Amino acid sequence: MSSNRDIDSLIELMAKLPGLGPRSARRTVLHLIAKRDLQLIPLADLMQKVAATARECLNCGNVGTTDICDICTDEKRANGQLCVVEDVADLWAMERGQAFKGRYHVLGGTLSALDQVGPEDLRIPQLVNRVEAEGISEVILALNATVDGLTTAHYIADQLEGRVTLTSLAQGVPIGGELDYLDDGTISAALNARKTL
Amino acid sequence: MSSNRDIDSLIELMAKLPGLGPRSARRTVLHLIAKRDLQLIPLADLMQKVAATARECLNCGNVGTTDICDICTDEKRANGQLCVVEDVADLWAMERGQAFKGRYHVLGGTLSALDQVGPEDLRIPQLVNRVEAEGISEVILALNATVDGLTTAHYIADQLEGRVTLTSLAQGVPIGGELDYLDDGTISAALNARKTL
Repeated sequence: MSSNRDIDSLIELMAKLPGLGPRSARRTVLHLIAKRDLQLIPLADLMQKVAATARECLNCGNVGTTDICDICTDEKRANGQLCVVEDVADLWAMERGQAFKGRYHVLGGTLSALDQVGPEDLRIPQLVNRVEAEGISEVILALNATVDGLTTAHYIADQLEGRVTLTSLAQGVPIGGELDYLDDGTISAALNARKTL
Repeated sequence: MSSNRDIDSLIELMAKLPGLGPRSARRTVLHLIAKRDLQLIPLADLMQKVAATARECLNCGNVGTTDICDICTDEKRANGQLCVVEDVADLWAMERGQAFKGRYHVLGGTLSALDQVGPEDLRIPQLVNRVEAEGISEVILALNATVDGLTTAHYIADQLEGRVTLTSLAQGVPIGGELDYLDDGTISAALNARKTL
């Protein structure tokens, strides 16, 4: 590629990032070199800072810079509601919605027979412990509506049955969604869960 | 997004990279944090190294770590041929082809009336100087086959007329290309430039 070893290694590493390939990695590295002061140096500095400070919350699995994350230490969020999500990106997505005021529990994936992911590979035992230790009254399952997500939801429901109210996110037509572009499953789910106006 | 300022700033910076948006930047940052030792730390280190050492070759505009790049200092490549490309990515693409044994000249863009890019914004005066100073016998125009690329090629041809042999890359069917997927312009160009078997 280039005639320089460091630049080549940087391109190789960038090409391993999700969504980037060799071509876009080359483009990105040239872009960064052209914008050295505005982008390359700040990016390198921030990456080093984040590498030194980022860690998983020991309680919920969120990513932050403290052993127990801001959400878990915020007493106002101890309202008895616990929202179970697959990964940190889903937690952040819920937070952007600003609709949920309780705490979270990040599973770190879904059960998957194909990928040999069992309950002990996820944070399911910790979830069962938290429900008791933190006096949780409602567990909201905000798992993705995929086969693996549904399997995981059923398994968790089995584990927690009788101890707590279990709910899941509503399924239906997205806000701003057009019927013509929706799949049949979503439309029939939305029809079955129809509401009186 | 996250509850941490450094992580948020990192996501914002990543989202400014070409080909990444806010969503893929969040995904990439979470991926990097999960692979701290294998990816995040090496990436930060390499970025800092490249930021400290990368520079444009004063002669041709290639990106390397010396004031004059490896290609310009390689005496074997002083064969009287000069290949003119739009940007460093194109130079690297030519080098991957391993077919060209001469030196390069990177314009740094194309003439564009819309974007107000004139000859003095590109390295065209330097190109004219190099043709005389380096005793160039053939200038190969390897510009993109776009309107701006063709305009730039015509302008350079005007500047260098009579001083040097001017050639451009052949246009035709790409190796492995299927006629059915090619545009009409390429097919008629390939037909006009047909060769006797």
